[in-house]
This record gives sequence, C-alpha cells and structure tokens, in this order.
Amino acid sequence: MKVVALAGGVGAGKFLRGLVRAAPDADLIAVVNTGDDMDVHGLRVCPDLDSVTYWLGDAFDRERGWGRRDETFRATEELRTFDPDAAWFGLGDLDLATHLFRTRSLSGGMSLSDVTARIARRFGIDATIVPMTEDRVETRLDVVAEGREMDLHFQEYWIRRGARDDVKGIRSEGAERASPAPGVLDAIGAADVVVICPSNPVVSIGPILSVPGVRAAVAERPVVGVSPIVGGRPLAGMADRLMPVVGLEVSAVGAARAYDGLLDAWVIDEEDAGLRARVRDEVGAQVAVTDTVMRDDEVAEHVARTALAALT
Amino acid sequence: MKVVALAGGVGAGKFLRGLVRAAPDADLIAVVNTGDDMDVHGLRVCPDLDSVTYWLGDAFDRERGWGRRDETFRATEELRTFDPDAAWFGLGDLDLATHLFRTRSLSGGMSLSDVTARIARRFGIDATIVPMTEDRVETRLDVVAEGREMDLHFQEYWIRRGARDDVKGIRSEGAERASPAPGVLDAIGAADVVVICPSNPVVSIGPILSVPGVRAAVAERPVVGVSPIVGGRPLAGMADRLMPVVGLEVSAVGAARAYDGLLDAWVIDEEDAGLRARVRDEVGAQVAVTDTVMRDDEVAEHVARTALAALT
Repeated sequence: MKVVALAGGVGAGKFLRGLVRAAPDADLIAVVNTGDDMDVHGLRVCPDLDSVTYWLGDAFDRERGWGRRDETFRATEELRTFDPDAAWFGLGDLDLATHLFRTRSLSGGMSLSDVTARIARRFGIDATIVPMTEDRVETRLDVVAEGREMDLHFQEYWIRRGARDDVKGIRSEGAERASPAPGVLDAIGAADVVVICPSNPVVSIGPILSVPGVRAAVAERPVVGVSPIVGGRPLAGMADRLMPVVGLEVSAVGAARAYDGLLDAWVIDEEDAGLRARVRDEVGAQVAVTDTVMRDDEVAEHVARTALAALT
Repeated sequence: MKVVALAGGVGAGKFLRGLVRAAPDADLIAVVNTGDDMDVHGLRVCPDLDSVTYWLGDAFDRERGWGRRDETFRATEELRTFDPDAAWFGLGDLDLATHLFRTRSLSGGMSLSDVTARIARRFGIDATIVPMTEDRVETRLDVVAEGREMDLHFQEYWIRRGARDDVKGIRSEGAERASPAPGVLDAIGAADVVVICPSNPVVSIGPILSVPGVRAAVAERPVVGVSPIVGGRPLAGMADRLMPVVGLEVSAVGAARAYDGLLDAWVIDEEDAGLRARVRDEVGAQVAVTDTVMRDDEVAEHVARTALAALT
C-alpha cells in the first residue's frame, strides 16, 4: 500500500508514529509543510520537518512538547547573556546539530529534499520525509499589535509574540511561484490513500495545498483526514485563533471544511460525535468517530487504523 | 598612555592580559587579525577576535589551549553523528553563542566593529578590541597536497589538515581592497606606543599590516614587539612551517625581520640572548631579553613591562 501523508508538526508527528505501527509494510511518504521555516542567526531552521523527523526517529521530547529529548540549552542560555531578546527562538544544543548540518549542506549545493533524507537516515527512519517544496514559501501574518499594523513571519507571531496579536490576514508568501519538491506529485499520483494529518489546517496543511499542483493531485486520490480540533479547541497550537481569520468555524466541522472538495473520509473525536451529521452533510465525507487524543503510540496507532479503515 | 596592540590569537591573548596588568591606566586598543575568519555552517566565526576576547574576559580555556573554559561540545558531537567529516572545526556550545550572536547582529546590519564591542562588553572587558578591517580579507595558502595543488583557507590548512601540506605561497586575499576598520588609523596615529604581540608574523600580524595604510601609520610611531619564536620554535602554532615560505629564518631574528622598518625595540627570550647582536645589527632595533614563556599572568605582566620599558 502506498500512503502519502500531508504533515505539519507535532500532531502530524504523533499520528505518523501511529501510522507506521498500523501499516508497517506500507510505503509511506510524508509531505511536510515548510512555510514555518526561517533563518535563525544564519542557520536554516525547518520546524515541521524536524518535528516529524524527531517523532518518527523517536528523538522527540514528549514532555516538553517540542525539540529533542535529553536536550540541553547551553548555547541558547549563553546567547541570552549577550542579549536577552536575541534568543526568542530556543535552539537546543543537539537540535543545533540538525540546523548546522542542514545549513552547511544547503550552502554546499545539496537540495533540501536530499538534506532532509540524510537527516532522516541519521535517525534511522524508514519512511520518506520530503519538504512540500524546495522553494522559499513563507507563512506571514498581517496583524495589529499595540495599535499598529505589522507583517510577521509565522514564528514571530507564534513563538516570539505568543499568538497575542489580532490577526487580519494570513499569506503563503512565494507559494504561487513555488514548485512541489521532486517526487511529490508523482507520489501523490501513485498513492492508494492520501492522509491529512491532524495538523493546523490554516498554517500547516494550507501551505502544502497552496503549492501549485498539489491540491489538484490530492483531489484525484482517496483522501482521509483526522480532525485537529476536539471539542471546539485545537489539541495543540493556535488554530482556534487562525481558523476564524479565514472564515472557518473552530470545530471538527470547520477543520473539515478547510479541505472542501478533497475529503472522502474524516475522523473526529468521540467528544464530537454529535457533529457526525454536519460533517456528512456539509462536507460530503464519510465520518469515523474514535478517541483521537494521542497520548501514546497505542492510541496513535488506533487513530491511524481508524483513518485507513474509514476509506474502505 | 595610549597603547595600540597588533594582535593574533593565543599568544596575543596571553600577552594582552599581562599588558592590562602592567599598565592598568593605559588606554588600550587591540587591533586584531581577521584573516582567519570564516563561515562555518552559516555562522561567522572570528577565531582571533574570540581568542583575544576570551583571554581578556578570563573565559579562555588555558588547559585546552583554545575556546572557552567550562565548555561542552554537544552540538559538535551530535553533528559528527550526521557526518564525521562535517565538524572538523569544533564549535563548543558556549562558543556557539558568540557566533550565533555575531551572525545575527551582522545580518541585522550591525558592523563587525560594533558586534565585537558588544561581545567584549558581555565579557566585561575594559580594553577596546577592534577588527583590523570590516572588509573580507582571507588568508589563503597555495599548497601541494597528495601530489596536487590546492588553494586552502588558513583554517583548512591548520585545523582541518593539521598543517601537514607543503606550502608554496601565502596570500592575504582581499587585503589590497580593504580599508582599516573605523578608528584604527586614528588610534595608531595617536598611540604613544604600538606593541606587536607575540603572534605569528606571517598569518596573524602580516594580514593586519597588509591592510592599506596600517603599515605606514605604524611606521610613524614608537614600536616594540615580542618575539613569538623562542629557541628556533614557535611557542604555539605553525609559524615554523610558514616563515620559511616567505623567506624568514625561524628564529627571534627572522621574526623581527618580518617587521623590517617598523621596530624600535624587540623583546626576545633568555634562551635567545645570543641573538641580541644580530637583532641589533640586522634589524636596527633595541633588544630586551627576558623570560617570555607566559605560563601565567605574572610572567605575562613581566613581559609586558619589559616591552614598554624597552622603548624608553
């Protein structure tokens, strides 16, 4: 079975661990959002690629909820003695190795796809992890902060400013000129199933679908998604703040509507069982209901099994 | 008293600690070699500026002989798991903070002089540390390695390849188009004394003097230098391999000849007392003889006192 998963960060990482357990013989390709990528102190940082890699490589820190396990922050703590404001994007010492390796490889002419594959190999990952594009696409937010309009990189909005600003608009800058990374369209075209991971529909999956050709290719395949919204709240992140900006209700129904015209099936949480009929009627997708709060790999595996079964 | 010191890395750092003790009320400006600077994994690394800063800031690791005290190497060790060859330039976790801060500041438009001053302030340093230039000047070596000609950055020759290659030529690339950093010529012009630290004359002090205007400005002032060569060997580094390439004898006399036309006085080690007459005759400088092996700050202070006294 060939499976393509569209993936953001933490929710995707958790789910993909379950997917690998649920379908160990599947040929899995994770197409990962790069709209959050940024240059930090000269280093190329790709938060979603790294989250997925660290999760699949069993190197993720589940307690902290980001970054690597057994991590230390000596460089970042020291950096704060230079300038308390200089280190708002916390880079762990082990995590720095990933960014140093990636930056050096990119500047040596290696493609982001190849670097990503090299990093995945370092973590012993069997699945294929690919960036959505090798071109620069940047999720930017128009916000009103302290009474004035600002244009922020997603990470500035989310990490630096704690998602406290009033968001007026969300753009996938550069997406219209971007090409899918090599192999992405072929992989989707050959997929028996495309899975949309329980990631932020606006700033994680949205950018992937905004790369020219991707949405159309996905629309041709059987597609199942898992709702990242449970009981009207995101399990992680700030989707509740961003979904209304693009006219989406903060619910398992609203998240499904983000994928209008794509979904054949949609997995929602038991807490949202009452929304089953609305998803069916408003989105036209089959609905599966299960416990989607992936507190461990066993639950994640069950969610993945439910998603794959929902299509058949 | 206004003192300008021309400085390379470790030998200069040791000596400058002594100079600060010997002349605590002096207005000290260290003009530091930047020919060894390089981009490492996207980060701007300035080995000599950092050595001088860590020495003057009492953060240098005297045991290891480079980098910061109480250092760890988690990022670098992790990087080696990606590619054993990727981390030939070992960056400590604390040291990384310096490079991250510098890179971020430079890319934000701050000048190298201002970044250097900010870093010195972080380490509580009273002396002024300035780069020789803010322009890119790179010490490059033409070598024959494994039977073929190669053009290596100084750090590749020294750190990566362990100075094992046969050197045919040494260039200060970009020097002819470089300008001294702001204030350098004024500082030299106003100096009561210019001190040439016991650094490699070819690849540490040579690049500073190769920046247009610097040699001429130094020639106008009283100049004293300390020999980095003791008993025909450098106290550290690879000057013994590079001095012959530019026609210099590997001795306290040869090192003095590197500064032909500049030196008013030259400090040599007791072991080289027999060279006193040759220095006087061949270089035309006064000669002071003392123990120059700076095993601690007390010896360094004595060397500095001897140097300052040699001019009067």
